[in-house]
Amino acid sequence: MKKFDVLIIGAGAAGLTAAIYTRRKELTAGIVSVDIGGQNLLTEQEENYPGFTGKSGPKLMETFFSQAVKFGAEYIPGKANKVEKTKDGFKLTLTNGEQYESQVMILAHGKIPKNLGISGEEKFIGRGISMCATCDAPVYRKKNVAVIGGGNSALETAELLTKFATKIYLIHRRDTFRGDEITQKKVKAAKNVEILFNHVPVEVKGKSKLESLVVEDANTKRRKELKVDGIFVEIGHILDTEFVKHLVDRNELNEIKVNRNMETKTPGLFAAGDVTDGPFKQTVTAAGDGAVAGLSAYNYLMKKQGKAAIKADWS
Amino acid sequence: MKKFDVLIIGAGAAGLTAAIYTRRKELTAGIVSVDIGGQNLLTEQEENYPGFTGKSGPKLMETFFSQAVKFGAEYIPGKANKVEKTKDGFKLTLTNGEQYESQVMILAHGKIPKNLGISGEEKFIGRGISMCATCDAPVYRKKNVAVIGGGNSALETAELLTKFATKIYLIHRRDTFRGDEITQKKVKAAKNVEILFNHVPVEVKGKSKLESLVVEDANTKRRKELKVDGIFVEIGHILDTEFVKHLVDRNELNEIKVNRNMETKTPGLFAAGDVTDGPFKQTVTAAGDGAVAGLSAYNYLMKKQGKAAIKADWS
Repeated sequence: MKKFDVLIIGAGAAGLTAAIYTRRKELTAGIVSVDIGGQNLLTEQEENYPGFTGKSGPKLMETFFSQAVKFGAEYIPGKANKVEKTKDGFKLTLTNGEQYESQVMILAHGKIPKNLGISGEEKFIGRGISMCATCDAPVYRKKNVAVIGGGNSALETAELLTKFATKIYLIHRRDTFRGDEITQKKVKAAKNVEILFNHVPVEVKGKSKLESLVVEDANTKRRKELKVDGIFVEIGHILDTEFVKHLVDRNELNEIKVNRNMETKTPGLFAAGDVTDGPFKQTVTAAGDGAVAGLSAYNYLMKKQGKAAIKADWS
Repeated sequence: MKKFDVLIIGAGAAGLTAAIYTRRKELTAGIVSVDIGGQNLLTEQEENYPGFTGKSGPKLMETFFSQAVKFGAEYIPGKANKVEKTKDGFKLTLTNGEQYESQVMILAHGKIPKNLGISGEEKFIGRGISMCATCDAPVYRKKNVAVIGGGNSALETAELLTKFATKIYLIHRRDTFRGDEITQKKVKAAKNVEILFNHVPVEVKGKSKLESLVVEDANTKRRKELKVDGIFVEIGHILDTEFVKHLVDRNELNEIKVNRNMETKTPGLFAAGDVTDGPFKQTVTAAGDGAVAGLSAYNYLMKKQGKAAIKADWS
């Protein structure tokens, strides 16, 4: 069974940064992931990652990945299925049956936004359909947009968009919102928001650019076509932390609890990025988390070997 | 007196990222700083910032700055001298007497590494003289280097370099180290480390590249010239947090204590990057901090205005 100093689960901003940092400390590092890039593969215009002017999320992740590989990290395509604590580390089993061992492990496999699952959606994800209002809201200045959902995320997205968009359709399948009262009031009071209760999205239309969203009244089954330039899907996320629940504490969202050193409750097991209970989910915060997890993992191994840990690093 | 939603002190990775994030939320933002780029102005090869392949620290900071300015942040050259709490925010006085007001403030003015103050040093800072072992150690693979200092930072730097450099001179002005016993032992046992106690650096020499360091025996005053390709200066930092000590808690290093939302003990006052008690001091961790501080500042203002705060943002 192949053994690494560090196994990293996930190859988004957090996982790839952890790989860069552990490799620069000359630890052997394997990255197990179903994709290279994570959430950023869905981001059309990556405007808020500092130091990057290359436009798209996938381009940014290509650079992250090339750095990780240049420094010697090994990419293992596959899906983590089972993690066992061993005497001196961890044993990872993938869904395809492959097994790997490591001294330390960094969980950085993020979240996956739920899709609408309707016709035309695939074509425009990351090119008109956004999963990140903070990233993409400014793109829709003076344009028409639709927001799908009825929880806090959907309401907050609609409220944020009131500053940018000309018109916002807020589409919710039920007749009441789940989000906070205060946000509901704000959104209802906003002049450029039109709320469509009891409506479900059924089709996304457009040739090269997204042009409209077809919605259906859940009661009458009557359909109408909304002319929009962008759609924000805010119907929740899939967070896969079941396979490590015996090793970590989780919050009410099933996010993995970590401290400022990105430590979980199990020594040698770290987590970084969107999979954690960190306060904000941004590319740059995930990357920062990944660096902290990588350096904490290095410190953990040094201490285990009776060597000196780095402290504040350059301090 | 000009008033901003947010005043940011410092224009390094943390401050400029905070500016990008607050501007993208359409808050008015002023950045007060003595330089543009902070610590990164001293970094020759910026290899470990994910997503950046442009080589030098100053180049990276140029991009950060251009993003902050593009989104509408206002740069105010100057040095913060005094911060007063006002009824609904803060009043900042610069050393030149200029005054500004803001609703929230983000302290991101970093640390300044102490210089040797010897002949030839200026010429090679960032081009052979390094202040960041984690950043630059891999650059000196199979080369000769000198490390200056006798505390934990110097010892840890020397230990890290044992993996890369052919020969490491560890130069300390006293006859004993201040660092941890365990690190002292490791460094003393390393075959490629030569310790020079009671020696002080007196001159850095080189034409286009750094070529040697002249050191002097503190007792005999005899000088010798060490052929080195790089010098790591680890003699401490200057941390300027006195001017806000009435508003924040500080640790034993005078770093500003913050929680995971980058909040200080004063509501509306945030801190990010090297000036805080964060566990590691890297460009990407500072940038992550800056994003968190910016989004926390936005949340603080929204709550104050009775509006909804963003939660995990894209979640």
